[in-house]
Amino acid sequence: MKKHIVPIILAGIIVVLAAVLAGVLIYLKNQPPQQRTFQPVTTVKPLEPDSSIWGQNFPNEYNSLLLTADNNTPTTYGGSAKLSYLEEDPRLVILFAGYSFAKDYNQPRGHQNSLIDVRETKRVNGTTHATCYSCKSSDNPSLWDQMGMEAYDAKLFSEMTPSITEPIGCANCHEAGTMRLVITNPAVEAALKAAGTDWRSYTRQQMRSLVCANCHVTYYFTGDKKVLTVPWANGLRVEDIIHYEDDAKFSDWTYPGTHTQIMKARHPDYELFSADSTHFKAGVACADCHMPYLRDGAMKYSSHDIKSPLLDPQQSCGQCHTDVNVVLSRVSVIQDTVHTTKIATEDALIDAIYAMRTAAANPGVDAALLEQARTLHRQAQFMWDFIAAANSMGFHNPEEFLRILGNATNLARQAQMKAAQAADDPSLLRTGVYDAMQPKPTPEP
Amino acid sequence: MKKHIVPIILAGIIVVLAAVLAGVLIYLKNQPPQQRTFQPVTTVKPLEPDSSIWGQNFPNEYNSLLLTADNNTPTTYGGSAKLSYLEEDPRLVILFAGYSFAKDYNQPRGHQNSLIDVRETKRVNGTTHATCYSCKSSDNPSLWDQMGMEAYDAKLFSEMTPSITEPIGCANCHEAGTMRLVITNPAVEAALKAAGTDWRSYTRQQMRSLVCANCHVTYYFTGDKKVLTVPWANGLRVEDIIHYEDDAKFSDWTYPGTHTQIMKARHPDYELFSADSTHFKAGVACADCHMPYLRDGAMKYSSHDIKSPLLDPQQSCGQCHTDVNVVLSRVSVIQDTVHTTKIATEDALIDAIYAMRTAAANPGVDAALLEQARTLHRQAQFMWDFIAAANSMGFHNPEEFLRILGNATNLARQAQMKAAQAADDPSLLRTGVYDAMQPKPTPEP
Repeated sequence: MKKHIVPIILAGIIVVLAAVLAGVLIYLKNQPPQQRTFQPVTTVKPLEPDSSIWGQNFPNEYNSLLLTADNNTPTTYGGSAKLSYLEEDPRLVILFAGYSFAKDYNQPRGHQNSLIDVRETKRVNGTTHATCYSCKSSDNPSLWDQMGMEAYDAKLFSEMTPSITEPIGCANCHEAGTMRLVITNPAVEAALKAAGTDWRSYTRQQMRSLVCANCHVTYYFTGDKKVLTVPWANGLRVEDIIHYEDDAKFSDWTYPGTHTQIMKARHPDYELFSADSTHFKAGVACADCHMPYLRDGAMKYSSHDIKSPLLDPQQSCGQCHTDVNVVLSRVSVIQDTVHTTKIATEDALIDAIYAMRTAAANPGVDAALLEQARTLHRQAQFMWDFIAAANSMGFHNPEEFLRILGNATNLARQAQMKAAQAADDPSLLRTGVYDAMQPKPTPEP
Repeated sequence: MKKHIVPIILAGIIVVLAAVLAGVLIYLKNQPPQQRTFQPVTTVKPLEPDSSIWGQNFPNEYNSLLLTADNNTPTTYGGSAKLSYLEEDPRLVILFAGYSFAKDYNQPRGHQNSLIDVRETKRVNGTTHATCYSCKSSDNPSLWDQMGMEAYDAKLFSEMTPSITEPIGCANCHEAGTMRLVITNPAVEAALKAAGTDWRSYTRQQMRSLVCANCHVTYYFTGDKKVLTVPWANGLRVEDIIHYEDDAKFSDWTYPGTHTQIMKARHPDYELFSADSTHFKAGVACADCHMPYLRDGAMKYSSHDIKSPLLDPQQSCGQCHTDVNVVLSRVSVIQDTVHTTKIATEDALIDAIYAMRTAAANPGVDAALLEQARTLHRQAQFMWDFIAAANSMGFHNPEEFLRILGNATNLARQAQMKAAQAADDPSLLRTGVYDAMQPKPTPEP
């Protein structure tokens, strides 16, 4: 018996080791897959309007979103302080004459202020449609889902007010549960389809720009129901959009005196950024600069304190550029150049408007030529407004901003020339009308 | 005696060691300083015109310089093929009417062709001054040194021909012996001084752009001796240069029919690149892209086969950019945008010229208003030419090219408007004159 003791002990050890190994392997196999650091602490229901519920699962993102409430710092040409564009550049009062934008037009503030600001603006009155809430609330995705966009837009602004309590929030860009980035605005969904594309085929990095297009696009209103429409069926360039709105015979208002049918452009940030800009072509997304990655201890998260990168250039630009001071000086050169060029376009438009107004009041005017002047004015003003309404004062795409402004000035001058031809009156060719209107400085005694 | 043997041996060893150490130190001290890999094989005399002599010391640089002779490859908007600008864009025949550039205006070829091409151009005739050799030969630095620039420029082109045998070469940018980069063109030396700066205070990297300004700058001719003058005293922006040439009451020619005193711009590449362009502000020099570093075995040298970076983008752009295809697509967007905008400016100028010509032929014309039209035409045409004569089709500084073109179009339209006012004739406001001149396509049978 004694001579068998050694093999028996060895066999026993082998059995024990095999059992332990099997146990370890079974234990490992039954481990849950590696988790995100935040385990969901709550289940967010689809299209949940209340961002604070999403915030239980994503406190860093939610807390940074709340910071957009207090973010009131201006930059040289932007930022998110509530400044009056009309006071800053009184040419706008002339250019928007006859339309609500001549009464009240402020620089937009951070996302948390969206409801306060839309309810305070003098542009909204008793006949305003609910369409003007489209980009202002995280209540919208569920309301659109329940009502359909057409029924929503057909309501008056005041009728929808009780249903809308949340400012812009999580549900505007994220799918609950998966947190996938999604297009929630049905008008943008339709526009992408009309342009022959589907956001579901986009990469996540592409969606980190495209979700901004849920709101940061130009639009107009179709029909009496004022249905939100994004005019991309012919393409996203300004010429494509003019062509589209021309075909739709759309105008926002008739310019007083000249009787031009004017289209208002609205913040075409996605259109301009995606028009072959440097950063877009290099694969940079809106979120890379406006929502830079931050760290909270070991956690990396995307800032939802969405704002001008100029308010924190080291965090935004510094993610790629080591030479942030060089970057800032470039931004300054680009913005100064675009700003000066924009003012020249405005002066040309105002010269044209005064000429056309006088021509239109002339009983002997050549109606066909005056109509040509109106077409040129309509195009020039939309091109200018496409730039003026966009954020970034040219930084999003300097070449495209300057190209469009150059064309706008050329067309504005041609509108003025047509007006003078229509009235057979070369005195309408006066330039520098706006400057001549300014009070002269009193000479020193 | 025996007890002293050990200290004596030790003292002997110390003496020997000290002697050996001293010898080694003296040997090291007398070593020549560390040498460049090429030991000079010949001594180059100051201002030596013959590049082949310099080439004995720097065979790689010299051999690459010789490659500029055969470099005849066009790019989309440039390169160094001998193409006729006038055939490529016949608007130029109108815009340069009355001046030699309407007869013959070709894209410049590589540096080795400089003498061949200047002797072949129809712009040179029996009355042309030697000034036109200023940027064409490495004989110039020594000729200027012997004669002075004023005496050189006072000679006729044909008189100087026998003294000039070398194309552009080493002596145009380098100091013999030290190989230091230097300003050799006295007109540029004077212009820098007038602008309040001295090239001797520039860093080597700054000189790797500034030596290109020995030639790649705009200029005009002062007085009957046609002395080469670089108009930088008010600054290097196009507005500063117009102001300077206005004060000097300079014009190259009088435009036929309109009687406008026109200034011709000449390749203001340094002015435009240094006007806060992206690459300039980032510290990139002309040579970084146009003369990229190459390797010959273990030797690193700067290519002197100076040409468009688009002809070897991996070598040029790839020194900094890993994403050369993205870079090329950006270049294409910028150049297409600037080209389209440039054509719009040309069309506006041609419309203005036709209006002014008719107005000037009208005996009842208001002379003061017509003179205002001429001032606007002069400014607009110089701004356009500042861009048209520059290389790179906008790439050197997209914002500045587009800013200037936008202004030029605006001023050209205002010139046309003033002409119509001067003649009290709104029919002069016709637009699209150039397009209307083109033969209509024959309809398919």
